[in-house]
Amino acid sequence: MSEPFPRAAVALPDPAVADVADLTAAVCDIPSVSGEEGALADAIAAALAPYDHLEVLRDGDAVVARTNLGRDQRVVVAGHIDTVPVKDNLPTWRRTTADGTEELWGRGATDMKGGVAVALHLAAALTAPRWDVTWVFYDHEEVHADLNGLGRLVRVHPEWVTGDLAILGEPTAAGIEGGCNGTLRADVRLTGRTAHSARGWRGENAVHRAGEVLARLSTYQPREVEVDGLVYREGLNAVGIRGGIASNMIPDECVVTVNYRFAPSRSPHEAERHVREVFDGYEVTVTDLAGGARPGLDHPLVAGFVSAVTAVTGGAPGPKYGWTDVARFAELGVPAVNFGPGDPMLAHADDERVPVDQIRVCADALRGWLA
Amino acid sequence: MSEPFPRAAVALPDPAVADVADLTAAVCDIPSVSGEEGALADAIAAALAPYDHLEVLRDGDAVVARTNLGRDQRVVVAGHIDTVPVKDNLPTWRRTTADGTEELWGRGATDMKGGVAVALHLAAALTAPRWDVTWVFYDHEEVHADLNGLGRLVRVHPEWVTGDLAILGEPTAAGIEGGCNGTLRADVRLTGRTAHSARGWRGENAVHRAGEVLARLSTYQPREVEVDGLVYREGLNAVGIRGGIASNMIPDECVVTVNYRFAPSRSPHEAERHVREVFDGYEVTVTDLAGGARPGLDHPLVAGFVSAVTAVTGGAPGPKYGWTDVARFAELGVPAVNFGPGDPMLAHADDERVPVDQIRVCADALRGWLA
Repeated sequence: MSEPFPRAAVALPDPAVADVADLTAAVCDIPSVSGEEGALADAIAAALAPYDHLEVLRDGDAVVARTNLGRDQRVVVAGHIDTVPVKDNLPTWRRTTADGTEELWGRGATDMKGGVAVALHLAAALTAPRWDVTWVFYDHEEVHADLNGLGRLVRVHPEWVTGDLAILGEPTAAGIEGGCNGTLRADVRLTGRTAHSARGWRGENAVHRAGEVLARLSTYQPREVEVDGLVYREGLNAVGIRGGIASNMIPDECVVTVNYRFAPSRSPHEAERHVREVFDGYEVTVTDLAGGARPGLDHPLVAGFVSAVTAVTGGAPGPKYGWTDVARFAELGVPAVNFGPGDPMLAHADDERVPVDQIRVCADALRGWLA
Repeated sequence: MSEPFPRAAVALPDPAVADVADLTAAVCDIPSVSGEEGALADAIAAALAPYDHLEVLRDGDAVVARTNLGRDQRVVVAGHIDTVPVKDNLPTWRRTTADGTEELWGRGATDMKGGVAVALHLAAALTAPRWDVTWVFYDHEEVHADLNGLGRLVRVHPEWVTGDLAILGEPTAAGIEGGCNGTLRADVRLTGRTAHSARGWRGENAVHRAGEVLARLSTYQPREVEVDGLVYREGLNAVGIRGGIASNMIPDECVVTVNYRFAPSRSPHEAERHVREVFDGYEVTVTDLAGGARPGLDHPLVAGFVSAVTAVTGGAPGPKYGWTDVARFAELGVPAVNFGPGDPMLAHADDERVPVDQIRVCADALRGWLA
């Protein structure tokens, strides 16, 4: 390092010495709704700049800090720094529940500034990790995929984000969730012929024709597929339907939008073929298609990470059902897992919060494995 | 009578002596989009004011002219004077088709200023009709039913619009179309439980549940019902469907909007009961319900009218499938038929037009019967 970074307008505490829960609160308290990550990116870059064991790089509002110790393997630890819009839930506050759990409340507490704080803390504190480490803090995860900061780094600076294992700090309640399912969206379009509904027999009703499409969805039997030791549950669902433009017209078009979530052992191409088979005879337009990521638990580095974490947390790894940015690493051929504090069911909720212990457990487990 | 009416800003030719096709063009050339009928209503009132055999009444932009000759029966001839918006199709122009048909083109030519001109002409010309006649020119037919001028007269001045037979001058290509079907709209609502589509099994998909509703619609066998000698064809159709709010959410609501067109022998109450039976087990909300009108062809006055018209036109009467304002007369217990120049399929079309001969045939047939 290090190129001269501008002094951040809002400073973070020294990440190496700060308590990781306090650091999470400080990271949350610099608002960073997608598109407005500049202040937090500046603060992260400024906080890491003093550490000579790190090379700090910047692309837009993504900050990458990495060691160059000549280790034979490299671990990438990544997390997005943006959040969904604030809803009167900043600054953060703390609450202790009836059963004694200390929680940090506020926008980003769950998704995913706890994971960001863990990475920021360890990036500064671990001056000589067991493997080289690349710490990635990126922008624009909560908006359209075209804007995704990690996707941009993969395209523009693939050498900044490659390695032998990637750990994405998305909330998993401090468990390991391996890989992720792929996702496909398609429009199944039915057509007919319009007519005045007073003389409906002159038309052909496109909405009525959708009944067969819905029947196929209702009777569809989703698979459960074991991949690298984890069982992925698939799903095929209508996520929308629309038809009809006037209350006295026979609709000449009806569109059923379906979402297929498929196991990472199935390629995007195979997923598309499957959906076309299910809706054989109908007009199918794929509008969105992203492959999943295999969990890679049979990879020695991943196995070591799993052992180290489960020794601390006691929980066995499970599959990740939702599509996450781990799939971007899969595209680079890098096995990737999700591991971070916070209940994923609370992501984006107005009452999002994170148990402080989970932040500490994640930091301890990752430190134990990397140190 | 008459009460002093303001002099109209735009005058019509003397309706008693004008050629009825020229009169149609003049009526069209005073634009009268719904809500802006004032100039035409003024012109109609002013054109009829000089005729001492008529009592001319006004309510808003509706004009009613009636004879009070002490006849034992009264015929109501009604038509709306408003049009849908002008689309570069005024002033009117004439064209002769390749097969020699002379046509009048322009907004309102079909729907329904030909019928208005026929009524206006005969109102002035027939000083001593065989029955008393009430000529009704009303506003706001092409917009929401709550604004309908005939509906307003029925509510506010029912004595202005009652009689023994009503003839509505809507376009029927100079044929008699008796009565009309009723119409019912209802929302069939399916509910479920939302979930992220990556974990669809945690939700219950409301769109999938709509499949059974669409299956019932697809297999529904509509009735054909003979009423007073005419066969009414019914229909039950989805006119709209909507469900889903996000492409990664299991929809927790789906609404199928259905439209039931029912024969005039079935009451609105019976129609509603039928629809609720068809969708038994589902949440059904009726949003719109209007009964039909029986054709009343067995009524001696109607039978006489039919004989007189068919002697001129040569065509047998048929049923009216679309709901029209004849049903407002049915509410008053007045049998009513549709009879006017113009192809109803051209109503509202940018290229709406009327064969000039049809205007003359309608005027001749009505004159022959009333004189």
